[in-house]
Amino acid sequence: MPSRSRVDLQRRIVERQGEFLLFALTPPREATSSERSQAIADATLGRLRQLDPDGLVLYDIDDESDRNPEERPFPFLPTMDPADYLSRHLTGWDIPVVVYRAVGKYAEAQLRSWLGAQEPDRVLSVMVGTSSRDKPVLTSLTRAQALRSEVKPDLLLGGVAIPERHTRRGDEHLRLLEKQAAGCAFFVTQVVYDINAAKNLVSDYHYECAARGQEPVPIVFTFSVCGSMKTLEFLTWLGVDVPRWIQNELSHADGNTLEVSFAEALATARELMTYCRRLGVPFGLNVESVSTRRTEIESSVELAARLLTELRRG
Amino acid sequence: MPSRSRVDLQRRIVERQGEFLLFALTPPREATSSERSQAIADATLGRLRQLDPDGLVLYDIDDESDRNPEERPFPFLPTMDPADYLSRHLTGWDIPVVVYRAVGKYAEAQLRSWLGAQEPDRVLSVMVGTSSRDKPVLTSLTRAQALRSEVKPDLLLGGVAIPERHTRRGDEHLRLLEKQAAGCAFFVTQVVYDINAAKNLVSDYHYECAARGQEPVPIVFTFSVCGSMKTLEFLTWLGVDVPRWIQNELSHADGNTLEVSFAEALATARELMTYCRRLGVPFGLNVESVSTRRTEIESSVELAARLLTELRRG
Repeated sequence: MPSRSRVDLQRRIVERQGEFLLFALTPPREATSSERSQAIADATLGRLRQLDPDGLVLYDIDDESDRNPEERPFPFLPTMDPADYLSRHLTGWDIPVVVYRAVGKYAEAQLRSWLGAQEPDRVLSVMVGTSSRDKPVLTSLTRAQALRSEVKPDLLLGGVAIPERHTRRGDEHLRLLEKQAAGCAFFVTQVVYDINAAKNLVSDYHYECAARGQEPVPIVFTFSVCGSMKTLEFLTWLGVDVPRWIQNELSHADGNTLEVSFAEALATARELMTYCRRLGVPFGLNVESVSTRRTEIESSVELAARLLTELRRG
Repeated sequence: MPSRSRVDLQRRIVERQGEFLLFALTPPREATSSERSQAIADATLGRLRQLDPDGLVLYDIDDESDRNPEERPFPFLPTMDPADYLSRHLTGWDIPVVVYRAVGKYAEAQLRSWLGAQEPDRVLSVMVGTSSRDKPVLTSLTRAQALRSEVKPDLLLGGVAIPERHTRRGDEHLRLLEKQAAGCAFFVTQVVYDINAAKNLVSDYHYECAARGQEPVPIVFTFSVCGSMKTLEFLTWLGVDVPRWIQNELSHADGNTLEVSFAEALATARELMTYCRRLGVPFGLNVESVSTRRTEIESSVELAARLLTELRRG
């Protein structure tokens, strides 16, 4: 039986061991009252306490309507700043939190003071650039990464890894290595449905690291369940490549969409875990609930619990 | 233990059961002497007798330089007509043979007389159109299919299924259904390396059949081993999509290219078998040796033997 005791996330990243599990949340909408936000936070923590993941991920949602001319399946409603949500409502949470920062939204001074206030044994950060080159930014990703090196070099920094971009351009592995040079100690993917896209990226990254005599850092693969065609549509809108056969299975699942997507996510995760272990590329797993529906959230927690038992711990 | 006794290929096709194994050969070069051709045929039959496949496939190689402007990795050398090779050199072969016909190469009268001479309990045929729309043909695929319906309706007819074309155009499943309407009772793919492309095609075909209330016919998936980067280059030239991560594994295999590709082909075949059984789409397997090197041929036979043990027989 695998041990279920939590591992030291920061150490697993720094030592390039991987085999850790994160659970990802999107903060409540900005318009949510403080009382309601606290109630949501309490309910979430209650659910997650039993799961006992190695870390929590808090997304920073940017209005990405500029990156896709298609109409957004769900309307964009600004969400609470994840740093604020953490400091105001998740004070009872004692395990590490990976706070996303869509850096283009923040002025340099804001980022500087936020970085200055963080405790690296509690917080890690994934910095994300803009979704489109034409969008005006307050701070560029490069500048934000430099700020972190200057202000809080001990804060573990992560970057995003996008297998779909690798499918289109073939150079995502080189971007990862550039981000590593800028201080990134781990990477987090968007939701993975296209296993070959993920394997292609891991493979190119692995061989490029080997060619340069560099050690690969952990890549955290994100999974989610999908309980409705609306959620599937949203995933696609976000730029997730969902293979045609999986789309077919979900749309013909006759009320079992959630179960079908659960089985699919589990199978994909297992195959990626086996593949990474074979190559010797450290990895983590991240489960997010894309939808806010209760059944989908519960199924996400169940998926995370299941994946936790398959990690090599201790 | 699965039974190894041969199954009735024609019956398995007509009854849409699938679960059969074919082994594919390319006839010797046209310039080969009759004695040498007989020696090759005898050696091949010796190798295959122990394997005992349910059928043999004989390819009809067309000069396909028109379909790809890139230089062909191996020079095109005309090969013997598979029908001639069969009638002259494989007379000792007593199990069914699937004879490919690149119909554009033949005048209608030639095809007509060939069809007239065939015994449907010994021979099946896969008719293939031209590789490019601009190429002049002596007989079109549609006309050739009609000839078979007229001259020898009992001769089981197959068509080609190209997952890669489905990736580009998304309508290969509709082409399959058109071919079915023209008399095709089974389909054979080109070599499968991209599992998702194959699953996407099977999935769309399955759901389109269901929507039309039609039964799917067996799809025969072709596998091969690849013992060198030259063979890999040739596969790519032929239009086979080899995922980047598999290319990487093969090119970094340090002398174990053949073993790595064997394991890969086996894993892909198993996953497709499981997938088709779950959907209820009948399938067959076909193993071809793309190269003429002895080690690659022997490894192909070994792959076929291994796959044979995984089929549901009896």
